[in-house]
Amino acid sequence: MGKKLTKRGEDYSKWYNELVIKADLAENSGVRGMMVIKPYGYAIWEKMQAELDKMFKETGHENAYFPLLIPKSYFSKEASHVDGFAKECAVVTHYRLKTSEDGKEIVVDENAKLEEELIIRPTSETIIWDSYRKWIQSYRDLPLLINQWANVVRWEMRTRLFLRTAEFLWQEGHTAHATKKEAIEEAKKMQGVYADFAENFMAMPVIKGTKSDSERFAGALETYTIEALMQDKKALQAGTSHFLGQNFAKAFDVKFATKEGKQEYVWATSWGVSTRLMGALVMTHSDDNGLVLPPKLAPIQVVIVPIYRSEEQLDAISEKAEEMMKEMKQRGISVKYDKRTTHKPGWKFAEYELKGIPLRIAIGPRDLENGTVELARRDNLTKEIVNQENISETLTKLLNEIQENLYKKAFDFREELITEVNDFEEFKEVLNTKGGFVSAHWDGTEETEEIIKNKTKATIRCIPLDAKMEDGACVLTGNKSVRRVLFAKAY
Amino acid sequence: MGKKLTKRGEDYSKWYNELVIKADLAENSGVRGMMVIKPYGYAIWEKMQAELDKMFKETGHENAYFPLLIPKSYFSKEASHVDGFAKECAVVTHYRLKTSEDGKEIVVDENAKLEEELIIRPTSETIIWDSYRKWIQSYRDLPLLINQWANVVRWEMRTRLFLRTAEFLWQEGHTAHATKKEAIEEAKKMQGVYADFAENFMAMPVIKGTKSDSERFAGALETYTIEALMQDKKALQAGTSHFLGQNFAKAFDVKFATKEGKQEYVWATSWGVSTRLMGALVMTHSDDNGLVLPPKLAPIQVVIVPIYRSEEQLDAISEKAEEMMKEMKQRGISVKYDKRTTHKPGWKFAEYELKGIPLRIAIGPRDLENGTVELARRDNLTKEIVNQENISETLTKLLNEIQENLYKKAFDFREELITEVNDFEEFKEVLNTKGGFVSAHWDGTEETEEIIKNKTKATIRCIPLDAKMEDGACVLTGNKSVRRVLFAKAY
Repeated sequence: MGKKLTKRGEDYSKWYNELVIKADLAENSGVRGMMVIKPYGYAIWEKMQAELDKMFKETGHENAYFPLLIPKSYFSKEASHVDGFAKECAVVTHYRLKTSEDGKEIVVDENAKLEEELIIRPTSETIIWDSYRKWIQSYRDLPLLINQWANVVRWEMRTRLFLRTAEFLWQEGHTAHATKKEAIEEAKKMQGVYADFAENFMAMPVIKGTKSDSERFAGALETYTIEALMQDKKALQAGTSHFLGQNFAKAFDVKFATKEGKQEYVWATSWGVSTRLMGALVMTHSDDNGLVLPPKLAPIQVVIVPIYRSEEQLDAISEKAEEMMKEMKQRGISVKYDKRTTHKPGWKFAEYELKGIPLRIAIGPRDLENGTVELARRDNLTKEIVNQENISETLTKLLNEIQENLYKKAFDFREELITEVNDFEEFKEVLNTKGGFVSAHWDGTEETEEIIKNKTKATIRCIPLDAKMEDGACVLTGNKSVRRVLFAKAY
Repeated sequence: MGKKLTKRGEDYSKWYNELVIKADLAENSGVRGMMVIKPYGYAIWEKMQAELDKMFKETGHENAYFPLLIPKSYFSKEASHVDGFAKECAVVTHYRLKTSEDGKEIVVDENAKLEEELIIRPTSETIIWDSYRKWIQSYRDLPLLINQWANVVRWEMRTRLFLRTAEFLWQEGHTAHATKKEAIEEAKKMQGVYADFAENFMAMPVIKGTKSDSERFAGALETYTIEALMQDKKALQAGTSHFLGQNFAKAFDVKFATKEGKQEYVWATSWGVSTRLMGALVMTHSDDNGLVLPPKLAPIQVVIVPIYRSEEQLDAISEKAEEMMKEMKQRGISVKYDKRTTHKPGWKFAEYELKGIPLRIAIGPRDLENGTVELARRDNLTKEIVNQENISETLTKLLNEIQENLYKKAFDFREELITEVNDFEEFKEVLNTKGGFVSAHWDGTEETEEIIKNKTKATIRCIPLDAKMEDGACVLTGNKSVRRVLFAKAY
């Protein structure tokens, strides 16, 4: 292969960038900050999409599609929202190109200037609530539970494949409710769906909590988040769900007639996860040999590689392999048989290790005689000889075991890295040596948060939902605090 | 309901617009020419996507994702391509908004002007072939068979929901091949896939053919098309597949090493269908009562409406309905039970008729006694009393029958409307009175095509793949022709 991967211990950031490219997940494009998602990366994203979409539909949501472009005037209607996004908006100003007067190049046609500029959606609250005004008249029209799968553009200055890109793919849920209580319940419910997906499909443990004021979504009254911990001990915000109050309903004048015939503003939520999850997936499980994929999201769960000298041997192995594959497919295992004669088994082994295929089967002439195969696990790199008989049962069991093992490993890693501290020296010490989450008292002010951020680069990742109430003193100011919050350096 | 639909015979165009809106498929947004696809419309599109995606994967294609924005310089590299799209390009020129100096409004920040303008993709050949240069080195990298599901923007001046919108959703396949022969085969194969989808899922008969020079895709050497006929006797181009020769490989310098070690330019195809198919679906089958959906694409195939006076009756009916639904779901029938007490049965009947649900079941107290249900077909508006026993078998059979019946009806309609003509007076006469496709000899020149278009508004829809070779005289000029082509007025 000639593709030596940088080790995580040497340079984690370089390891990540190299891995994403070498494993054929994504690459940079000719457009600043925008990526190309390659087929193998997209296949993983499709599996994520399929599971999430199912979960959204099971919780009563329907998909719809709203325009890519948002008139500037809509965008400006909710004040804190536009403040939050104005600095990173791609703006469409013209709608035609033409040949230059000297006939030598293609230029923007200045006669085709738009009367009002259009913004490429960085998120769709404004264009969606403009529609909701028409869709919602009465309490009978509520709740309105809509999701959109879409691309969005945020003109980020520093970009990294999947983690922060100028264009990314995501889903954005936008719901409308008759009561505040119901909207808050919805926002929490979707945080729960995200946590469920992260833990049960991505095998990535997350902490559920709320954001502090300064980290809240632009336009939200409360942001519910799920926070994960990467192998370099930095936190990553993996999904957010927002209670928007009546802000957008007021900005877009969306009222409904209650059962009693009164006109009231509608309550809103929005929630999203994006291709950023691909980065989280890579950084949670992968190792110095390449990707490690949880079986539930692996486009190929099992690969079979024949080991042979002669063509007769290959034919005999292929016959057996086809037979086994049939059995596996019936069990819903996705399997690939790689009988390419252009590459040696060792090359193939390295390739599938790099690509993170959970299980690898090798079959040679001796295996045919003995009715066995060699089975290699990607997660712990162990090998064993197993019987061909009931192979698909063995594989199903092992795939489940790998899925669980990956979660457990990530969970144990994360648990080790939540440290309670009680003074600021210890706070800095833990952040700089051990890393991970620091659980500390905070006086609840934005000023304190800002000072801590400037001194340590750590931010409040969340106020955990399960934080117990306890009297304490703020780690920086010594002022009164009623519960600990989680700080960390973050992506 | 109070939603009286204009009749097709009165004003077909008005009927279409009203139907799309009243059936909750889509609506116009606040952005000129851009639509909102509503949940019911999107659910149909999702079914189309799922089937097409399966067909693409079965023919060896993988999905990927490329940037939304294309640098102007890429866009200009293939001359005929830029000529074809320059007049309808949305152009991004800035990447930031700011508060105006007087603090009163949000304006474009002139300091955030892009060095090079970016075009929102109207189609992705240029950005994709810029990547392919990096992906393709050797014959071993070929064929490269990629598809992308995406949104595109074309600044159309006259727009209509689904049929022609400034933004639409589509898939675009982009493949690279070692030989001309293989690329042509691919382009034809995908035309075949589209025809298969149109006929077997949309129940919409299509004619396969090639486009004349003037109707060809900008940058293609040959465009393979599928053409359908709508109920107003106008043709609709439903999908196209292009053989691009080496045009894009040359523009983006994509060469590969052959087995013999020579450097050669790669051969290309591209192919796409879009949300325009939604318009085609509506216009092929629907009637004066509303939508008519082919069962294979109907989000809800069967709806059950209870007919009751007392709550006890409703409870008894509900019990039976739940039982039947369980059986139906096991058979893979998608069914909805509408026991809303807020609406009368008659209102529900009209609603589901408007929404095109293929089968409607009504159950009343007498049905419970007799072990029967009333079953109504949406396609031919007939009703019959059937036994509850084996209901799901009855429904499966009927759904297949409806699917076939819709195809047959559309096919017979279309066959009646292909008329051979041999002189220009007859040509005009048929177009103006009978409508549909006119099969006529054509001398093969763009000039003749242009004159005919100006005189009659009819264009060459395609040169049918199965056109038999026969000597003839051009219907306009009398010049030599070797086969008939199909003219029609078109969407």
